[in-house]
Amino acid sequence: MYRSHTCGELRESDVNKKVILSGWVHKIRDKGFVAWVDLRDRYGITQLVFDEDRTSTKLLEQARTLGREFVVQVKGEVIERASKNPNIPTGNIEVLVEELTLLNSSKTPPFTIENETDGGEDLRMKYRYLDIRRNLVKDNLIFRSKVAMAVRKYLSEQGFIEVETPYLIKSTPEGARDFVVPSRMNEGQFYALPQSPQTFKQLLMVGGLDKYFQIVKCFRDEDLRADRQPEFTQIDCEMAFVEQEDILNAFEGLTTFLLKEIKGVEIDKFPRMTFDDAMKRYGNDKPDIRFGMEFGELNEVAQHKDFNVFNSAELVVGIAIPGGNSYTRKEIDKLTDWVKRPQIGAKGMVYVRCNEDGTFKSSVDKFYDQEDLAKWANVTGATAGDLICVLSGEAHKTRTQLSALRMELAERLGLRKPDEFAPLWVIDFPLLELDEETGNYHAMHHPFTSPKPGQLELLETDPGAVRANAYDLVLNGNEIGGGSIRIHDKEVQSVMFKHLGFTPEEAKAQFGFLIDAFQYGAPPHGGIAFGLDRLVAILGGQETIRDFIAFPKNNSGRDVMIDAPAPIDEAQLKELNLKVDIRS
Amino acid sequence: MYRSHTCGELRESDVNKKVILSGWVHKIRDKGFVAWVDLRDRYGITQLVFDEDRTSTKLLEQARTLGREFVVQVKGEVIERASKNPNIPTGNIEVLVEELTLLNSSKTPPFTIENETDGGEDLRMKYRYLDIRRNLVKDNLIFRSKVAMAVRKYLSEQGFIEVETPYLIKSTPEGARDFVVPSRMNEGQFYALPQSPQTFKQLLMVGGLDKYFQIVKCFRDEDLRADRQPEFTQIDCEMAFVEQEDILNAFEGLTTFLLKEIKGVEIDKFPRMTFDDAMKRYGNDKPDIRFGMEFGELNEVAQHKDFNVFNSAELVVGIAIPGGNSYTRKEIDKLTDWVKRPQIGAKGMVYVRCNEDGTFKSSVDKFYDQEDLAKWANVTGATAGDLICVLSGEAHKTRTQLSALRMELAERLGLRKPDEFAPLWVIDFPLLELDEETGNYHAMHHPFTSPKPGQLELLETDPGAVRANAYDLVLNGNEIGGGSIRIHDKEVQSVMFKHLGFTPEEAKAQFGFLIDAFQYGAPPHGGIAFGLDRLVAILGGQETIRDFIAFPKNNSGRDVMIDAPAPIDEAQLKELNLKVDIRS
Repeated sequence: MYRSHTCGELRESDVNKKVILSGWVHKIRDKGFVAWVDLRDRYGITQLVFDEDRTSTKLLEQARTLGREFVVQVKGEVIERASKNPNIPTGNIEVLVEELTLLNSSKTPPFTIENETDGGEDLRMKYRYLDIRRNLVKDNLIFRSKVAMAVRKYLSEQGFIEVETPYLIKSTPEGARDFVVPSRMNEGQFYALPQSPQTFKQLLMVGGLDKYFQIVKCFRDEDLRADRQPEFTQIDCEMAFVEQEDILNAFEGLTTFLLKEIKGVEIDKFPRMTFDDAMKRYGNDKPDIRFGMEFGELNEVAQHKDFNVFNSAELVVGIAIPGGNSYTRKEIDKLTDWVKRPQIGAKGMVYVRCNEDGTFKSSVDKFYDQEDLAKWANVTGATAGDLICVLSGEAHKTRTQLSALRMELAERLGLRKPDEFAPLWVIDFPLLELDEETGNYHAMHHPFTSPKPGQLELLETDPGAVRANAYDLVLNGNEIGGGSIRIHDKEVQSVMFKHLGFTPEEAKAQFGFLIDAFQYGAPPHGGIAFGLDRLVAILGGQETIRDFIAFPKNNSGRDVMIDAPAPIDEAQLKELNLKVDIRS
Repeated sequence: MYRSHTCGELRESDVNKKVILSGWVHKIRDKGFVAWVDLRDRYGITQLVFDEDRTSTKLLEQARTLGREFVVQVKGEVIERASKNPNIPTGNIEVLVEELTLLNSSKTPPFTIENETDGGEDLRMKYRYLDIRRNLVKDNLIFRSKVAMAVRKYLSEQGFIEVETPYLIKSTPEGARDFVVPSRMNEGQFYALPQSPQTFKQLLMVGGLDKYFQIVKCFRDEDLRADRQPEFTQIDCEMAFVEQEDILNAFEGLTTFLLKEIKGVEIDKFPRMTFDDAMKRYGNDKPDIRFGMEFGELNEVAQHKDFNVFNSAELVVGIAIPGGNSYTRKEIDKLTDWVKRPQIGAKGMVYVRCNEDGTFKSSVDKFYDQEDLAKWANVTGATAGDLICVLSGEAHKTRTQLSALRMELAERLGLRKPDEFAPLWVIDFPLLELDEETGNYHAMHHPFTSPKPGQLELLETDPGAVRANAYDLVLNGNEIGGGSIRIHDKEVQSVMFKHLGFTPEEAKAQFGFLIDAFQYGAPPHGGIAFGLDRLVAILGGQETIRDFIAFPKNNSGRDVMIDAPAPIDEAQLKELNLKVDIRS
């Protein structure tokens, strides 16, 4: 037996007990006649004491040979500490060591095993197994496990069945790029790794398993943006014989349960907002509603004077920054520079200071008088002491720019509180999205998303105006889940394929088995998928998903710890009937 | 709202209620003035009644347009049935339909949606989404979900953390063949799909997460034998600061819990048997101990006469078939033919009839007298009415042949009862296995398995004799789990690599990151992995794993429903820097 207790377990009530502990040497303090060793395991830290009086000189000598991260087993007696440490649960006791066994030695680790470590990201990733010893990382992984268990518990109790769908499936050109897997047994043919189990979950609905879920890895061979992973985890869900309202209620239930169970936060009813409203009020389809700073549209109150920049703009829109009147001119100039950076792309920024005495001072005083500016303040909800920031231009672009500014300022002002949770359903998404490069419409969600009842005809006349039975669950400004009611009618599906530019032959080639399946009594159905990595990060009060993944990949899709991907043997390639053919 | 109740829910206490049901038309019986429709969903079947008197002729006409597997919604009143059906839970009631809505029509399905279907395996696999509507398949999937939840519940409560390990890892030539995934972003390089998370779970132990589990897909590109799948699911587990005894107890706990929770079977303590004993007593390292028919070794009592076949054999071994004396000569000849089939490979079979009067009649009466045969009966445990079957030859082969005969006869005699559960730990496996083709030893379990204490020296003199801290959990003659205590000492690991024929360079190239990790304080650790597919099948009283997988692949590794694998676009290949190069 390696241990009778863990290193996080012993308390004052255990004093006088003989115990066995195992763990890692976290720290050593040597005072000559006595030495203390902090012994660490997953559960905590226990102080060991080696004392030439109370035990033996030999044992003390042995303790002196230990180094950081050595693995040891000790037997000894729990004693009360002379100077207690109130900061750790075991701080009232220590273990007077009677026997010390070295289980393994250790090279000096390349960084300290502390929350505030001296190791940079790259080094920590290369030695991820040491990084995981740090409480921060370890606790994140334990937290993730807890969230996943809570999800499974809730959904199982609601009658959902977890079904494992296959990983070796078929490549479809639709959507993002697939990772493919060459088949040795089927020459020249390839499997694909699933981008999501979308078609399989719909087939399960056709198969009558009316409440499905799965926590499942998905794969996308995309050029990685910051904090994207080529493999990621979804909570994938689907229900049959449901309308949108049923799905929203079911997964509002799940999210409410998680917030309560994991964070102790009680939220009664999630607000709902249409996509159009979210764009109008926040310039964003995943608004963070933990704070205000809603958009005020100023066209009516700003396009009556000689200021051509505004007069020629499709949209003039502003937000009020609480307390922003305290900004210096220099600080405001910096903000202007910030929105003019190429990543944001604004042409400029107009501002209005709302003075404490009720007067206004703006960068466009030449064009607008106090009465005008009072109206702007009214529309943006600005009060004395605020700063109004105004952008203008093409509507969609301007909203996106102002949304970026809103989020940046909220961050700076500490309004994005990690322990505050504001869920929001965004509903009535557009069915189609215009691809600006090709001028074609493609499915915003996916080609099986159903249009709102009665809007099918609009596809002919105004495809961009068609709204879908599609919804996102937003939490603190992040999309944590999204889904839709699917098309279960084959006539509607053909109309959709036609409008998405598929010939019947192309549709058949890509989705043949699903189209076939839908001819055998497909029930009305719909679903949702949550990004587990992000959900866990947000519940954990953070936004970087990498910190919640045991072995993440870097931005080139590499695992720097195991050094993958890597070249493979020529023999392996030959068996797969493949040749590497680098065309530079 | 599509339904107020499911089709499995209504009882006599619901009579007079107005209800809404949705589901599939399972069966229609039309008596002219009245028609009954069996409406089916995941939860059961409810009888609907359409009656020109009690409702309307129009509704009855509408019901007549329905076909098998049409999807409908009905509103109506629960009434008591005139002729009750005690075979289904809803058999006391029916729903008098007041409103019928067709939700979807259906082509006539290619096979009947019944437990006893008219569809063959191939057809059912092609239309798996219809196959899943059959209770048998649906119930298996629900059962699997239940088992997986129970596993998670138990392990979580025991402090195990579920950690997701990566799917895109690095190919290692060791072991079975990897599936590989070309990397687009890293030219000419490949990921591999994990055959198991072995190295990652060991790294998690180095990282201090001392109780890990994961229910995880694994991949092996093997030529598929019957009932093997290229992707399969493991319950993968690892613990640190443990000895073999700790692991056996922990997972005996899990298995006991599952048997109790899922099957209501209470088993107190699992028996243990060494690998050597299992081979000697059952000719098999995964013996089915639900029944006897243990091997009796007959060398001593059969090699003293002139029967050269036995005298020249390394092993003469027999089993007693209960009641086998009733077999006709023809039946015994058939058994002899059965063991002589190339799949079994015995040269012949000697038999001894144990007559009711205590005399014996054997196929080798020319060589052995009654006294000899009485000794054989004594050794094999045969009693009056039994038949002793004796095989001889090279020891290992003969045991394997007799084991096959034992299992076949037990099957025929109905001794392998699906509702009886007999778990068994097989321990003390050999560390190394001789590869008969190359004459080299390779790791029986994997290269990180630790030899029994004190046996390291034997590696030099008698490698085949070294026993490992390796164990299998056997249930009803199937290996459901296997694992080992790992080597955590780098010196021992180098000795092992040497004996497995790795140069230090090769070891470094293949397992470099693990060897590195072991230099930073690896704790003593070990683990086990269960095959979930097989575990679920056996708990379900069956042995075919395919029946417990939602979308299985066939023996060529194909998914015939989605028709994968399949060729991919030239453009896709080009992006991956690959060329298909079929060399026939």
